[in-house]
Amino acid sequence: MKVIAVSHGSYSKGLVESTQMLVGEQENLVAYGLFPEQTVATLTEKLEAEIEKTEEGEEILFVSDLFHGSPFNAIVSLMEHHDVYHVTGINLPLMVEVMMGRYAGKNAEEICAGLIEAAPGTVKDVRKLFEEVEEE
Amino acid sequence: MKVIAVSHGSYSKGLVESTQMLVGEQENLVAYGLFPEQTVATLTEKLEAEIEKTEEGEEILFVSDLFHGSPFNAIVSLMEHHDVYHVTGINLPLMVEVMMGRYAGKNAEEICAGLIEAAPGTVKDVRKLFEEVEEE
Repeated sequence: MKVIAVSHGSYSKGLVESTQMLVGEQENLVAYGLFPEQTVATLTEKLEAEIEKTEEGEEILFVSDLFHGSPFNAIVSLMEHHDVYHVTGINLPLMVEVMMGRYAGKNAEEICAGLIEAAPGTVKDVRKLFEEVEEE
Repeated sequence: MKVIAVSHGSYSKGLVESTQMLVGEQENLVAYGLFPEQTVATLTEKLEAEIEKTEEGEEILFVSDLFHGSPFNAIVSLMEHHDVYHVTGINLPLMVEVMMGRYAGKNAEEICAGLIEAAPGTVKDVRKLFEEVEEE
């Protein structure tokens, strides 16, 4: 499975770099950002080229920064003609989950389901957690 | 309210840059990364210096990449002696939520509660959403 991270600006690049700090260097993991000087059409073209150079039969998972917005829409426009997966709202723990799932041999559908299940638990109010522990 | 993003590597820097692409340049928003050549002690010192140069009475919200791990632990060690807020598992839509909440005059406690409430809805399986829409 190829994983393609897409975002406004450098978020996707930072995400991919930091993921690799946590789980080691990864193959088939790339990042694309939409920067102010670029058009959405250029980004879409680059993403389509990335899809087209993927080996036959290899699944593709897009992870995007947030619902709506140009990077999200670029992927959605590609989903009309390409059989790809797409989870939006990605954060670092979920990206680690993607890498671990792939390493464990899960397919894209299983990984996407796992992300949606895991997502709420990845965001925590740490101060509140500590207050609750102290109260117990 | 000052917002301090902290992560492994460049994730926090990308997060802050991309947030500002979405909502414009922000004051009192800074990013710190822990890089392989750095020690956790150095990061902790920098974060403490950032706390100490904050104006008296101004709230501080840390947003970190993921639960556990060195950047998270550095913040937790500071929480013992400093009255700061801390939400972990941050992603781009939640960071935008922080900025909008601050702009709307919400305090750190309200913003943290809002993030926990909003978090599950920020992560979506887009392919599945489209399949559900087609079925209806």
